[in-house]
Amino acid sequence: MSILVVGSVAYDSLETPYGSMEKALGGSAVYFTTAASLFAPVNVVGVVGDDYDFSDLDFLQERKADLSGVIRKKGDTFAWKGVYGEDPNERETIYTRLGVFADFKPEIPESFRKSGYVFLANIDPDLQIDVLTQVDRPKLVVLDTMNFWIESKRESLNRVLEQTDVLIVNDSEAKQLTVENNLFTAAGKLFDLGPKIVVIKKGEHGALLLSKTDKFFAPIYPVEKVKDPTGAGDTFAGGFMGYIGSQDKTDWDTLKKAVIYGAAAASFTVEDFSILRLKNITAEDVNQRVGEIKKMTEF
Amino acid sequence: MSILVVGSVAYDSLETPYGSMEKALGGSAVYFTTAASLFAPVNVVGVVGDDYDFSDLDFLQERKADLSGVIRKKGDTFAWKGVYGEDPNERETIYTRLGVFADFKPEIPESFRKSGYVFLANIDPDLQIDVLTQVDRPKLVVLDTMNFWIESKRESLNRVLEQTDVLIVNDSEAKQLTVENNLFTAAGKLFDLGPKIVVIKKGEHGALLLSKTDKFFAPIYPVEKVKDPTGAGDTFAGGFMGYIGSQDKTDWDTLKKAVIYGAAAASFTVEDFSILRLKNITAEDVNQRVGEIKKMTEF
Repeated sequence: MSILVVGSVAYDSLETPYGSMEKALGGSAVYFTTAASLFAPVNVVGVVGDDYDFSDLDFLQERKADLSGVIRKKGDTFAWKGVYGEDPNERETIYTRLGVFADFKPEIPESFRKSGYVFLANIDPDLQIDVLTQVDRPKLVVLDTMNFWIESKRESLNRVLEQTDVLIVNDSEAKQLTVENNLFTAAGKLFDLGPKIVVIKKGEHGALLLSKTDKFFAPIYPVEKVKDPTGAGDTFAGGFMGYIGSQDKTDWDTLKKAVIYGAAAASFTVEDFSILRLKNITAEDVNQRVGEIKKMTEF
Repeated sequence: MSILVVGSVAYDSLETPYGSMEKALGGSAVYFTTAASLFAPVNVVGVVGDDYDFSDLDFLQERKADLSGVIRKKGDTFAWKGVYGEDPNERETIYTRLGVFADFKPEIPESFRKSGYVFLANIDPDLQIDVLTQVDRPKLVVLDTMNFWIESKRESLNRVLEQTDVLIVNDSEAKQLTVENNLFTAAGKLFDLGPKIVVIKKGEHGALLLSKTDKFFAPIYPVEKVKDPTGAGDTFAGGFMGYIGSQDKTDWDTLKKAVIYGAAAASFTVEDFSILRLKNITAEDVNQRVGEIKKMTEF
């Protein structure tokens, strides 16, 4: 079953202790799609500027991605520069140049409106709401957000949350959304906001999948050299939803496995800059790491 | 197979956001033994002062603990006062009064010297070495230590590490011991110091069991109200070694399960002050949480 993703398409400038990269392919929609399209058809909606070279994304068409919803506008593509320290969790944003993304108003092509699964990547909650008004009720609405929107657009965010089935946040965002220190208490309050399922990402400590009645602990796939952590979260979401799309099921067992697919996919992203590693893997490579994670958690 | 533990027996004074407790039973040997003796016979070596009321430990004799190695000396029992903040990981030591523990020189009773498994709780590395000279070569030497000894007695600590089979440390200690930021890189270097197996405790994020060739991820058992985190680490070690002692095996599958028993046991400790909860549970209670953890990690 196909997946709709609405998010950013960007050129990143990256600096990490392992090197640097200019004009790197980036943006939540790109990371997400590169992972998800290994497993299921992905319909992508986004915007780029005059400077964007679409041929860089040719590899996506060999996977199962439809880029016809990525439109070109006059101006510059969204550009972001980040510098990471020794601790991959600490990064400094040097600049964020919105360019054509500043006026981004997602238009969902007719052919995308019946996508079974929708991923609202981390963009303005008002735009996320707008996307939901344009699509037929999907089987699952999955939402990402960040501290910036929690602080600046809480009311709009609450309205999206009411229509969200699965919320994916990191641990600090979960605590911020609920003003709770204990993750499990925080999760309990997140359900009150709308989502039936909450995925809490904990960086190197893995992820938690939570429903009102069940809990599932997923580790990361261990990577010794995290060359570039950019996009790990979006790749996680891509692996997660790619697996769900491939199974076209949303029961607890499928969701558990989907989280592991997310973790496995994300481990490839951080092994090299941008999508350099992720674009050169196959579904079988991800399957293999899923198997290894199974070995590392079974007792 | 029986387990020898050498560690502290203390009176704690505890303050947490959930209340306070004076003259609480504490000390690494007490937490360890309360957990381990649910599963295997435990031989305890320690020291207490004139003020210690042994009848408080009567419940341990109904389990499988032999306290004949806990000797009474003239003076006060080791006393410690700690205050915890909202974040259970942050605690302030108000005082540490060594009392009779200052001159502690472990003497291993003849009948304890053939214990199959030895747990060297977090005490002066010179004393830990001394213990090892007094026992017949056990099947497994398990070591705990802390930042204080890493900083002040590194040479002695290195000598204990050379004779250690399993090192149990928390993540910050692992990084401190190896001057490495990445946990997996740190673990690689820990093996060079002696241990064949490393267990890295990550607080609310669970624990890692590592050998040179294998990795195992264990979650915590989720507890919403951490009333008093004191002794969680020693209880973890107690559950871990108790299970190993009960199986009398040290293969990888046993070690994996032992880590889960450690996590399950520790979850009871933090649910109430001191050993109040831990002393009132049965092996079956721990088994049940082990089963629940299995459900929360299987996919």
